Amino acid sequence: MKLVPLGDRVVLKQLEAEETTKSGIVLPGQAQEKPQQAEVIAVGPGGVVDGKEVKMEVAVGDKVIYSKYAGTEVKLENEEYIVVKQGDILAVIK
Amino acid sequence: MKLVPLGDRVVLKQLEAEETTKSGIVLPGQAQEKPQQAEVIAVGPGGVVDGKEVKMEVAVGDKVIYSKYAGTEVKLENEEYIVVKQGDILAVIK
Amino acid sequence: MKLVPLGDRVVLKQLEAEETTKSGIVLPGQAQEKPQQAEVIAVGPGGVVDGKEVKMEVAVGDKVIYSKYAGTEVKLENEEYIVVKQGDILAVIK
Amino acid sequence: MKLVPLGDRVVLKQLEAEETTKSGIVLPGQAQEKPQQAEVIAVGPGGVVDGKEVKMEVAVGDKVIYSKYAGTEVKLENEEYIVVKQGDILAVIK
Amino acid sequence: MKLVPLGDRVVLKQLEAEETTKSGIVLPGQAQEKPQQAEVIAVGPGGVVDGKEVKMEVAVGDKVIYSKYAGTEVKLENEEYIVVKQGDILAVIK
Amino acid sequence: MKLVPLGDRVVLKQLEAEETTKSGIVLPGQAQEKPQQAEVIAVGPGGVVDGKEVKMEVAVGDKVIYSKYAGTEVKLENEEYIVVKQGDILAVIK
Amino acid sequence: MKLVPLGDRVVLKQLEAEETTKSGIVLPGQAQEKPQQAEVIAVGPGGVVDGKEVKMEVAVGDKVIYSKYAGTEVKLENEEYIVVKQGDILAVIK
Repeated sequence: MKLVPLGDRVVLKQLEAEETTKSGIVLPGQAQEKPQQAEVIAVGPGGVVDGKEVKMEVAVGDKVIYSKYAGTEVKLENEEYIVVKQGDILAVIK
Repeated sequence: MKLVPLGDRVVLKQLEAEETTKSGIVLPGQAQEKPQQAEVIAVGPGGVVDGKEVKMEVAVGDKVIYSKYAGTEVKLENEEYIVVKQGDILAVIK
Repeated sequence: MKLVPLGDRVVLKQLEAEETTKSGIVLPGQAQEKPQQAEVIAVGPGGVVDGKEVKMEVAVGDKVIYSKYAGTEVKLENEEYIVVKQGDILAVIK
Repeated sequence: MKLVPLGDRVVLKQLEAEETTKSGIVLPGQAQEKPQQAEVIAVGPGGVVDGKEVKMEVAVGDKVIYSKYAGTEVKLENEEYIVVKQGDILAVIK
Repeated sequence: MKLVPLGDRVVLKQLEAEETTKSGIVLPGQAQEKPQQAEVIAVGPGGVVDGKEVKMEVAVGDKVIYSKYAGTEVKLENEEYIVVKQGDILAVIK
Repeated sequence: MKLVPLGDRVVLKQLEAEETTKSGIVLPGQAQEKPQQAEVIAVGPGGVVDGKEVKMEVAVGDKVIYSKYAGTEVKLENEEYIVVKQGDILAVIK
Repeated sequence: MKLVPLGDRVVLKQLEAEETTKSGIVLPGQAQEKPQQAEVIAVGPGGVVDGKEVKMEVAVGDKVIYSKYAGTEVKLENEEYIVVKQGDILAVIK
């Protein structure tokens, strides 16, 4: 069972935030800032989206930085994903 | 009696949320998060919508994830449907 | 005396909501959810609207579902109508 | 002294609301719902407005229904007019 | 020293509101509704503004009605002007 | 060290407001209305900005009136500048 | 590990604000106005962004002034960056 995004959408999986601070204290999930790094899980076909030609420029496996408040959280088989438009991906980490 | 969507609209039927939590407790309807999974019931013809050519990419029977707050709820013969624009469908579940 | 809509506008007449609940109790008008079903009374000529070509796809007599908060209520000779843009009609009921 | 509207604008004069209710009680002006019916007093030349070609479709003398909150009220020689864009005219009454 | 407007902008000078009411009482400035009539003082060259071709249709000396909340008030050598875009001029008074 | 604006941007330097009122009282800076007159310090190259061709129409040294709330204040070597888009310049003072 | 921006995005690194005031008092970080000067660290490829051709006009190493509230702060290996669209860069400092 997998998510096949439409148009210029991209399915992301957040990368785990490091769970210890520099002093070694383990923070519970809530206290951590939501990480903006994610891995690309699936990439839509692009094409004409909202009347504009979009060429997909990220690939499955890319590590990316995405816009903090963008996207829709989606749960599938107890895994959480974020579906964003490619335009909400700021940069690829290489 | 059936709904024939216009333009780039798609008629969806929400898939039932699993009604037991992992610990086996049955939750009443209200306490459950509204599921975002739905089945495609009918697909509009696409074509020029709001001055832009739209090609329909979902088909009747597809299981899809749609944007949480999108769409209009519609009741027909005691069945509830959601009518969304195709652009509010994030991904197909395969 | 009749309404001849301009551009991509459509004149609708709401269909009466069923006035008894399943248990047979008659609800006063206020207590009923505003029905979204309506009949098409008149259809504008379409053409170039706001710089975009619009082709009319509904016809007089069609039963349609329209977007809950769309349109303008209009009273003519004690009859109430709703004037909507065709884009606010979600689906035709067949 | 007269108003010559620019572009796709139309000068309207509100039609008087009927000042007695069915039971014959005369309502003071305030208690009446603002009527949406108006007569067309002057019609702009149309042409390219905001980068889009607009063809004028109403004529002086037409009785029209216009969008409730549209337009700008204008006073000229103690007469009140409403200047609207043609796109805010919903329908012609024939 | 004079204002030469850019693009589709027009420099207006408000026409004085009549300072006595019908009953002959002189109202202090504050109590009067801001008049919407103005005289055209200078007209921009038009041309491509915000990607759209604009043809200027008002001329210096025209008396015009402009949109109530449009424009920017400008003071030059103790004279007050309003600079509006031509699209905020509703009608010419002839 | 100088500012070279990008696209359709223009660097302005506010002209000093006259610091005495007609009665000769010197007002402290805060009590004065922010002047809208400025001198053009640098002009961007224009060209395609946000998908639209923009031709620059102001020149270094021009005295201009700009829109009251437009632009970004910038400090460089203890001098304050305002960077605006050319479209926020209302008129040239000649 | 580096950030490779997509489309018309640019990765910036803020330049340190001068940490002493003219009188020589050292201000703690909070009390200083956020500097708007930054150095360009990486430049996206440009091309068609949101349906419009964008040509990149800044280069790595440029010192730039950017719009105060634009961009997304990004942390990578304990370094803080700001990712902005080129359109939010006001001027290059030369």
